[in-house]
Amino acid sequence: MKNLLVAQSGGPTAAINSTLVGVLTYAYTKKGDIGKVYGAINGIEGVFEEKFIDITEKVKDTESMNLLSNTPSSALGSCRYKLGDKKEDEEKLKDIIAVFRKYNIGYFVYIGGNDSMDTVYKLAAYCELNKIDDIKVVGAPKTIDNDLAKIDHCPGFGSAAKYVATTFAEIERDISVYNTKSVTIVEVMGRNVGWLTAASALSKQAGGNGPSLIYLCESDFDMDNFIESIKNIFKTKSNVLVAISEGIKNKDGRYISEEVQSDMVDSFGHKYISGAARVLEEVVRKEIGCKVRSIELNLMQRCSAHILSRTDIEESKLLGMKACQCAIDGNAGVMATIIRKSNNPYEIELSSVPVSEVANIEKKVPLHWINKEGNGVQQEMIDYLLPLIQGEVEIEYRNGIPKHMIL
Amino acid sequence: MKNLLVAQSGGPTAAINSTLVGVLTYAYTKKGDIGKVYGAINGIEGVFEEKFIDITEKVKDTESMNLLSNTPSSALGSCRYKLGDKKEDEEKLKDIIAVFRKYNIGYFVYIGGNDSMDTVYKLAAYCELNKIDDIKVVGAPKTIDNDLAKIDHCPGFGSAAKYVATTFAEIERDISVYNTKSVTIVEVMGRNVGWLTAASALSKQAGGNGPSLIYLCESDFDMDNFIESIKNIFKTKSNVLVAISEGIKNKDGRYISEEVQSDMVDSFGHKYISGAARVLEEVVRKEIGCKVRSIELNLMQRCSAHILSRTDIEESKLLGMKACQCAIDGNAGVMATIIRKSNNPYEIELSSVPVSEVANIEKKVPLHWINKEGNGVQQEMIDYLLPLIQGEVEIEYRNGIPKHMIL
Repeated sequence: MKNLLVAQSGGPTAAINSTLVGVLTYAYTKKGDIGKVYGAINGIEGVFEEKFIDITEKVKDTESMNLLSNTPSSALGSCRYKLGDKKEDEEKLKDIIAVFRKYNIGYFVYIGGNDSMDTVYKLAAYCELNKIDDIKVVGAPKTIDNDLAKIDHCPGFGSAAKYVATTFAEIERDISVYNTKSVTIVEVMGRNVGWLTAASALSKQAGGNGPSLIYLCESDFDMDNFIESIKNIFKTKSNVLVAISEGIKNKDGRYISEEVQSDMVDSFGHKYISGAARVLEEVVRKEIGCKVRSIELNLMQRCSAHILSRTDIEESKLLGMKACQCAIDGNAGVMATIIRKSNNPYEIELSSVPVSEVANIEKKVPLHWINKEGNGVQQEMIDYLLPLIQGEVEIEYRNGIPKHMIL
Repeated sequence: MKNLLVAQSGGPTAAINSTLVGVLTYAYTKKGDIGKVYGAINGIEGVFEEKFIDITEKVKDTESMNLLSNTPSSALGSCRYKLGDKKEDEEKLKDIIAVFRKYNIGYFVYIGGNDSMDTVYKLAAYCELNKIDDIKVVGAPKTIDNDLAKIDHCPGFGSAAKYVATTFAEIERDISVYNTKSVTIVEVMGRNVGWLTAASALSKQAGGNGPSLIYLCESDFDMDNFIESIKNIFKTKSNVLVAISEGIKNKDGRYISEEVQSDMVDSFGHKYISGAARVLEEVVRKEIGCKVRSIELNLMQRCSAHILSRTDIEESKLLGMKACQCAIDGNAGVMATIIRKSNNPYEIELSSVPVSEVANIEKKVPLHWINKEGNGVQQEMIDYLLPLIQGEVEIEYRNGIPKHMIL
């Protein structure tokens, strides 16, 4: 009887442990068909180093599963490992298979984003090429960036989007209390894609107006237009709330932060590049001269497990189950995926896609979901996003704060 | 029958509307004794401009009271107005009284922090001096800084502390996933007091270790010691989490941010001072050379109404009721306050203090609640803080995010 190995990789999310719970849940229903369930510590790096734990010892009942599911970040640790060129790869792939043989691994589920799907792809391809058919490698998706191809939306994104929407609504309340003119620029994660920044538009659901301006990295950012837009808004409104992707670029494709700060050095004499919001803050201060503040949502937007989207958490678990099922059914080289059947009522279907169609592709926001001025989103975007943040998850508190599971 | 006026002032908190609800709750029980209940928009500035609304029209049932109570920031708006020198004051105070007369105001409850208590103090003293005994001016406290004198702890602080503790626990999970050495420096609000930064120590309750280093602004910050401490921790641990107050200063009383960045200019040629955490980030990068990140909790720590401390919200309401009661009972020139009777079980008593004993005084963290090395807190601090973050508040969600009331 073959053992199952599961690992997590890439940037943490608030839902990646829910996918892990999904893998365990399905594995437990197949107790007769599989042996042990190992977790590799620090992703594929843990495979090389044979850093395995027997998860079944730590997570065996509903209570511990729920606690793990509501714990943010990757409970098994993570890595940023990416397989290299072809020749080097082959050695590494051989090493991985050798470790799998040593531990009698028949099923490997790798939970991760773009880079991790590349690993799944190469590993599955290696197995196929070398006729290794007793090791089934499958991917389970995750990323707050929502940039994976061949999936309607990514696990982890919905919870991050719920946090972003909630936080923008709260910031809007906070900045609205004074009568004096002010600009507040909030930077959201997304180096190349603006999905999560777009979720700021959902803040309107709280009862306020939402951000006055939303800039995604898919459209060119123009500094003059930005300043002009703020001046226009000031004609009717005192407090301007702006959402920007960290990766906004000018029309030449250069990051705004680099464009403005290229000459800047600190008193140690070394280069100092801050985030895009901080740069815009300085420009607004200089060009408009009003009160201005920049805010980075930083790590909080990807690990705020105290405000999870139930939709996201449930789907993340289902995808873990689906990935595990694919592996056990012998459907290797695929990623578990979500197909949306309808927006209203929201209906999805689980499926699987060849991971070759996912690896190394970045799904950007369609330009027709951004308004003509490049400073807001269209209704299609709202309709797409809204179902993903629905529902809350009951959290277990200990001494006043949410309890976490540490493996 | 005299009317009641209520206003909010100073920096917003997640609990200040709960105090407003407390004022309304008590006022409604005294329907026979008082006339209308007005709210002044933008604090005392709204009094000068006679920007009053009749709150009873908007907030009349339990449902709307709960919604208002769970809405972050000052629903009536705020101001940073501080009465000036004695001569100028007198004119202003006269103006205020004239407006009160015009609207037949017999009771004025001002919800705010230090500056607002100064206004209450001057206004009440003016009334006493001029034998105006049909206008009763009373203060209700609030501040996330927890720096008011003659009160065990301030309304709004408990919810901010719960957010800080929760967020540190989540960040700790996030930064623990990689194997490589890293330093994460999180900056918490507090220009002169470290109470809220100390709350980071409560993050341990989630099951992790809490921050390795905690620097409050009450003790002198020494850069060499800081770097040395990190190097020491690296001997046994990969990921170092650091909590700092925004106002940490060196032994000469100079802000760290100013000390390091005094020569720095951006490409516009103007001075560029960033926050303390950003400064430490650059120093760690230079001195240690490991992966390093700085995070500011920014406005989120004072407006995160999606994770409220029930203890804080209930006490905030009780203080609003108490302040209103003082006014109606003719007990002018006081601030409603909390006296702690015991830590375990946690017991408090409501009372009132002459606002003269509160105005313009800043309550700092006692030095013996900070460890000898100046980089952590003692058990006394934990015992003091822990009761304040207990309990959760049920939040009403609309379309996936908490709903707010906009007056």
